[in-house]
Amino acid sequence: MAGSPLESIMTLFADYASALDDRRFNDWTELFCEQCHYEVQSKENWDLRLPAALIYCDSRGMIQDRVTVLKDTLTYPYLHSRHLITNIRIHGEADGAYRVSANYLVLHTTEEGETRIYSTGKYQDEIVFSESGPKFLKKIVIADTSAIDNLLAVPL
Amino acid sequence: MAGSPLESIMTLFADYASALDDRRFNDWTELFCEQCHYEVQSKENWDLRLPAALIYCDSRGMIQDRVTVLKDTLTYPYLHSRHLITNIRIHGEADGAYRVSANYLVLHTTEEGETRIYSTGKYQDEIVFSESGPKFLKKIVIADTSAIDNLLAVPL
Amino acid sequence: MAGSPLESIMTLFADYASALDDRRFNDWTELFCEQCHYEVQSKENWDLRLPAALIYCDSRGMIQDRVTVLKDTLTYPYLHSRHLITNIRIHGEADGAYRVSANYLVLHTTEEGETRIYSTGKYQDEIVFSESGPKFLKKIVIADTSAIDNLLAVPL
Repeated sequence: MAGSPLESIMTLFADYASALDDRRFNDWTELFCEQCHYEVQSKENWDLRLPAALIYCDSRGMIQDRVTVLKDTLTYPYLHSRHLITNIRIHGEADGAYRVSANYLVLHTTEEGETRIYSTGKYQDEIVFSESGPKFLKKIVIADTSAIDNLLAVPL
Repeated sequence: MAGSPLESIMTLFADYASALDDRRFNDWTELFCEQCHYEVQSKENWDLRLPAALIYCDSRGMIQDRVTVLKDTLTYPYLHSRHLITNIRIHGEADGAYRVSANYLVLHTTEEGETRIYSTGKYQDEIVFSESGPKFLKKIVIADTSAIDNLLAVPL
Repeated sequence: MAGSPLESIMTLFADYASALDDRRFNDWTELFCEQCHYEVQSKENWDLRLPAALIYCDSRGMIQDRVTVLKDTLTYPYLHSRHLITNIRIHGEADGAYRVSANYLVLHTTEEGETRIYSTGKYQDEIVFSESGPKFLKKIVIADTSAIDNLLAVPL
């Protein structure tokens, strides 16, 4: 079941997506290294190298704090989210860390059952293989979409 | 051309999608085992463990019957469908059956050439490898989207 | 990092997408063989075997010419594009050329940050492995979507 590095990384992305979509936020944080970096940026800011990030965490502890806030605030009208992660590509490996990019599309479905595009963009990640499988050492989300009112709250 | 189990399963999903999108329904039924289970559920019902399914077939014969009905009823304004299947992940293997999940997005394009989201959701499948390649022993479609008037008619 | 033929082809598709989405058009043309064929068709025309193509190039030189035009005309309101390429499937190999199909979804995000579906459809390609990696010998884009006013201009 081990598979190639690419297959292991595809599995990591699938687990990342299903943890978020199922709201298993503790499982989601477990996919990051203790010492890690997680950042959500708008493409506009990223391209202009502006520092302002929508989400900025530089440890798993900070990610867990954010998740705690999320659990308390996710009382807004119930939405299903669905991540489609494609174009997964390994760019290279150095000191055991794989540089990986991918594209994502997140769809939201309202309580009434209507589905709409929530966000699309790309991931620029660094992934290391620990004994318990691959984990994110660094994950930068660069969102094309910015016309969404609650982007601040939700990891992508 | 054989590839890893994951690569064979990716091929099965691609064939599943193109058979449906090209309306080659007989080819589509051939991707299931004789003894199989195919079910389409709304996420709402699935999460509440309600028994009502949008489609429920417990043999390839039943799937073929449904396909026959489809061919007769697909006289409604012509639509192209397009399946994007992502996040394919093997969860384990027991007695030759692989437990596999994936996400899907189905887009419909009208006769006027306009494309809109038809349905998104996930697959929870069991896949076995026969002499003629991998086949679905069990396929459960759990649709996030429910605000669609003709969901009953069309496999996902 | 080499991986299976399917993994190399997945990498080619990821590079194809990111070159277009990042507007690195020269990098994009480098993914084609010198002698190649690139064509964009509407599904409607394709199914009726009508010859009219939205884009038709039968060499890399012609593709480069089109790219030059693109660079001059892409002064219309700034849009981000995002390609999601899925369902990548090898159908066979003959004389070193792999027949490959895939589905795509292209999303456009306006300057205001709103994302909408631009085009969906499929690729029917032939890919050869050169010393510098896999390249497109033939690429046919068959677009389901036709209700888009600027389809003529942009490669898919």
